[in-house]
Amino acid sequence: MTTSVWNGAGRRIELCDVGLRDGLQMEAQFVPTEDKIALVNALSHAGLSKIEVTSFTSPTAIPALRDAEVVMREIERRPGVTYTALVPNARGAERAIESRTDELNLVMSVSETHNLANLRMTRAQSFAALAQVITMAQAAQVPVNVSLSCVFGCPMEGDVALDAVWEHVQRFADLGVAGITLCDTTGMAFPTQVGQVVAAARARWPGMAFTLHFHNTRGMGLANVLAAIDVGAQRFDASLGGLGGCPYAPGATGNVCTEEVVHALQLMGYDTGIDLPALIATAARLPALIGHEVPSQIVKAGCRLDLHPVPAGFDAIRERALAR
Amino acid sequence: MTTSVWNGAGRRIELCDVGLRDGLQMEAQFVPTEDKIALVNALSHAGLSKIEVTSFTSPTAIPALRDAEVVMREIERRPGVTYTALVPNARGAERAIESRTDELNLVMSVSETHNLANLRMTRAQSFAALAQVITMAQAAQVPVNVSLSCVFGCPMEGDVALDAVWEHVQRFADLGVAGITLCDTTGMAFPTQVGQVVAAARARWPGMAFTLHFHNTRGMGLANVLAAIDVGAQRFDASLGGLGGCPYAPGATGNVCTEEVVHALQLMGYDTGIDLPALIATAARLPALIGHEVPSQIVKAGCRLDLHPVPAGFDAIRERALAR
Repeated sequence: MTTSVWNGAGRRIELCDVGLRDGLQMEAQFVPTEDKIALVNALSHAGLSKIEVTSFTSPTAIPALRDAEVVMREIERRPGVTYTALVPNARGAERAIESRTDELNLVMSVSETHNLANLRMTRAQSFAALAQVITMAQAAQVPVNVSLSCVFGCPMEGDVALDAVWEHVQRFADLGVAGITLCDTTGMAFPTQVGQVVAAARARWPGMAFTLHFHNTRGMGLANVLAAIDVGAQRFDASLGGLGGCPYAPGATGNVCTEEVVHALQLMGYDTGIDLPALIATAARLPALIGHEVPSQIVKAGCRLDLHPVPAGFDAIRERALAR
Repeated sequence: MTTSVWNGAGRRIELCDVGLRDGLQMEAQFVPTEDKIALVNALSHAGLSKIEVTSFTSPTAIPALRDAEVVMREIERRPGVTYTALVPNARGAERAIESRTDELNLVMSVSETHNLANLRMTRAQSFAALAQVITMAQAAQVPVNVSLSCVFGCPMEGDVALDAVWEHVQRFADLGVAGITLCDTTGMAFPTQVGQVVAAARARWPGMAFTLHFHNTRGMGLANVLAAIDVGAQRFDASLGGLGGCPYAPGATGNVCTEEVVHALQLMGYDTGIDLPALIATAARLPALIGHEVPSQIVKAGCRLDLHPVPAGFDAIRERALAR
């Protein structure tokens, strides 16, 4: 069999679970702090290489994550796992660094309209504020990842010029960030585009650790992951249970679902380093914690070889058939 | 840009919508006959090349489709569209032929357990019965397609030996059927397997019109479609609105969703011949007819460039930002 994207051939793919941040931040029901800690610990034991634990935003802005410090301080630190957190500004960076966060994940949008609507700043203002945070992080020797929103399209502007994406990648590369996440914030990415963008980014910044962050809003999440792998991508964000909807598409699926991605990639021969049954068992805890079902198809349907019993009366059906 | 599966380059993909059969057959709410006819007509106008209109099964077994004759007789016949129907036995074939069905779609499983559980016959008995139906169809000059269930796995047996698949393909090919649909009945197929099976089938029976029928039960539907296209597949079943669940996975998604597949393939540069807005408008009628939401992400989220307004107060947000 020739090696292609369809045959993982043991190649390693790294996943960062963002469910506790990108997912829980929009849940109405507060998940108790000890349950958040237990979820992070379970993800660590399941073999995730990176976990976005929380967000150091204002507790009044996102009350669902008002326990950021406690969660970050009390989780088990498993060797080899990176415990990252979203940090919106200098105040958040102070809190994150004090709480021993392994990596700060900064965020801004490459769409001016989306950045203004979400962060109430122009892109230039966001960049200046994040540059200050990067200086703080570097002084504290904490690595920085920057997540760029709307790389594959803005829900208000439409397609975003790639020049705006590359300009921001270059400016953050110049500041020495360790990684950049190219985010499909509202599920507008499609495989052809993904291949072009990821191939171009990797060619232009061969030393940069790029991560891809896809939403499954229009059913293309896994296809986009595969299109990115086909041009060499190795790191992806995904969300436990598929948590994390989209304010622009009520009822639509959110982030690509970690256990769906792991289930598919393992079947295809990729090495994710993840204990799938342990991951699924962790995702299965979510509905009780958040008060509703999760989008995960794997939580509902199980793995492909989770077999079902024959129907009641099967022996009699067979006997009658054979007697004809 | 090199041609690959990620770049359709205008290649044609034919879709058969199976929502009215595979979808409606398991709905509790009876869809009025005139609404079924209107749905088929809308699909014809949207550009589907094949539509599975109904099933000529016993009205007591599947009351949701008890109006098969009326629907098949009263739909508009658009030139170039094939109006097919599922036919389980000789009685169904008589009814279908009398109702001027363009093609009979016969079904049996390549898994002995699944065939017994679903059809209450051994595979040998099913084959003998279908051979008789094929003779009837040939006498009436009506083409036959055979849908083989569980090609990619059986929910009770697990993996099905490919020899059993090939044996059935060969036996039906020997009887002169026009096409064979390889069905992933319960969403067990994964892309690596799909590529291997489809490539092998096409190599061995180059003259056979193979169709692929995938379910999205475990989130791999679109990826499986792309894996099949990558080895030359050109025909797929899909279901309007993503209708059609799976009795083995309550709550899980059913067939791959026609408008999701068309949306993705068109973005990727494939030619489906389908008017996507007309297709989406047709899918949007379903919730009112069946009494619940449909799985379709496109019905919920719209197309990728269906833009959203800026939030209320956006001008003031911008003014405040620029004044800093």
